[in-house]
Amino acid sequence: MGQAELAGTVAVVIDVLRATTTITHAIANGAECVIPLLTIEQAREQHAAHPTTLLGGERGGQRIDGFDLGNSPTEYAPAVVAGKQILFTTTNGTKAMQACRAAKTIYIASFVNLTALCNELAEHETIQIVCAGTEGEITREDVLLAGAIVDQLTADAQPIDRNDQAQIAADAWQEAKTELTATSLAQRLKSSRGGRNVLRIGLEGDIEIAATLDKFNVVPRLDPSSWQIRDHRTTPQ
Amino acid sequence: MGQAELAGTVAVVIDVLRATTTITHAIANGAECVIPLLTIEQAREQHAAHPTTLLGGERGGQRIDGFDLGNSPTEYAPAVVAGKQILFTTTNGTKAMQACRAAKTIYIASFVNLTALCNELAEHETIQIVCAGTEGEITREDVLLAGAIVDQLTADAQPIDRNDQAQIAADAWQEAKTELTATSLAQRLKSSRGGRNVLRIGLEGDIEIAATLDKFNVVPRLDPSSWQIRDHRTTPQ
Repeated sequence: MGQAELAGTVAVVIDVLRATTTITHAIANGAECVIPLLTIEQAREQHAAHPTTLLGGERGGQRIDGFDLGNSPTEYAPAVVAGKQILFTTTNGTKAMQACRAAKTIYIASFVNLTALCNELAEHETIQIVCAGTEGEITREDVLLAGAIVDQLTADAQPIDRNDQAQIAADAWQEAKTELTATSLAQRLKSSRGGRNVLRIGLEGDIEIAATLDKFNVVPRLDPSSWQIRDHRTTPQ
Repeated sequence: MGQAELAGTVAVVIDVLRATTTITHAIANGAECVIPLLTIEQAREQHAAHPTTLLGGERGGQRIDGFDLGNSPTEYAPAVVAGKQILFTTTNGTKAMQACRAAKTIYIASFVNLTALCNELAEHETIQIVCAGTEGEITREDVLLAGAIVDQLTADAQPIDRNDQAQIAADAWQEAKTELTATSLAQRLKSSRGGRNVLRIGLEGDIEIAATLDKFNVVPRLDPSSWQIRDHRTTPQ
């Protein structure tokens, strides 16, 4: 989807494994804000100017040299992140956020805050869901969450219009939903492209965390003007 | 998917509504070959050089001025097409075929020849499925057929590897398959983007035809050297 199509819209960015899941953990665990940046250099420059910030993110799935934190949700524990500003850069997730910069508002989506997010999204008339994918290709873990969002919004009182991509995602989620157990979603995520990448670097536990539905009641929102992600209750609409 | 990725592969082109469904009708009904062309001008030039050919295709869903046939499968009846070479140009389908020109071989897929096609595809180790979509965007009717192909190939003895896009399509098809009746597939196709376009021009019957599983036992194949679509039994591998 091009910038032009996103101008002025309500965008929802999905990178289930792991950027948006990790950001949601950071915000839920009390980080003051997360600042998503495209490049390692940008993150290092901002950190040099603001030494109290934490540096977080990954390249090739691994923590970046000299960074305080990688891209595992478990690293973003309350004791570490509470009250902190976090400069954050990942391979696909922060690119997807950057691609949404013309949007009116940008929500950060994950399974761990699905219901809280959907309650907030229900207030908006039109929503553009942006899946980060991997190397420019759509991935199953992101499509499953997109489908879960479409499904949950449809379950509400009013029927909603969806384009074909939203319908395909909802179709795919129905298949996951029919046998949804504590471990079945994690199993599906493990077999996805993002999941296989995370398994390859030995972080299976991160996938199980990412598959935990509604662990948190926060809705991280990226403000296009301040370029900071905060819980939606603490940022102006 | 870029040309480079398709070089040397076995490609399967899908444009359920309606190009690949219509081509399958033409071949099943005895056309000597179908020649897919990008532009109206190319079709007219070739027709001028070979006046015994038939001109077929659409723009905006409608038959093109001066053409013999539009893009409805019903127009390609045996009495009309038997023994004929058909010059064929459509908005999305023939573009998708052109995008596959670097492939080793190119199959034309539709629900009306699903089983015959899958029997043939089972002979190949690696397959790239290319959905024509609409204006560059993936559409549900094409994804459903892609999923049906993945599903049918998986049902065979050997398990197959699929990338995430193939898995998403298979997920989406599972949802359609659980309640697959004579009319339920047509209903799904009608609500797809391609379906809504066909309904808009008053050709609901074309969608019902496109949703008829295994009407034919032919496998149209586009030979990248001769650039002709013929039944696979009559073209060299």
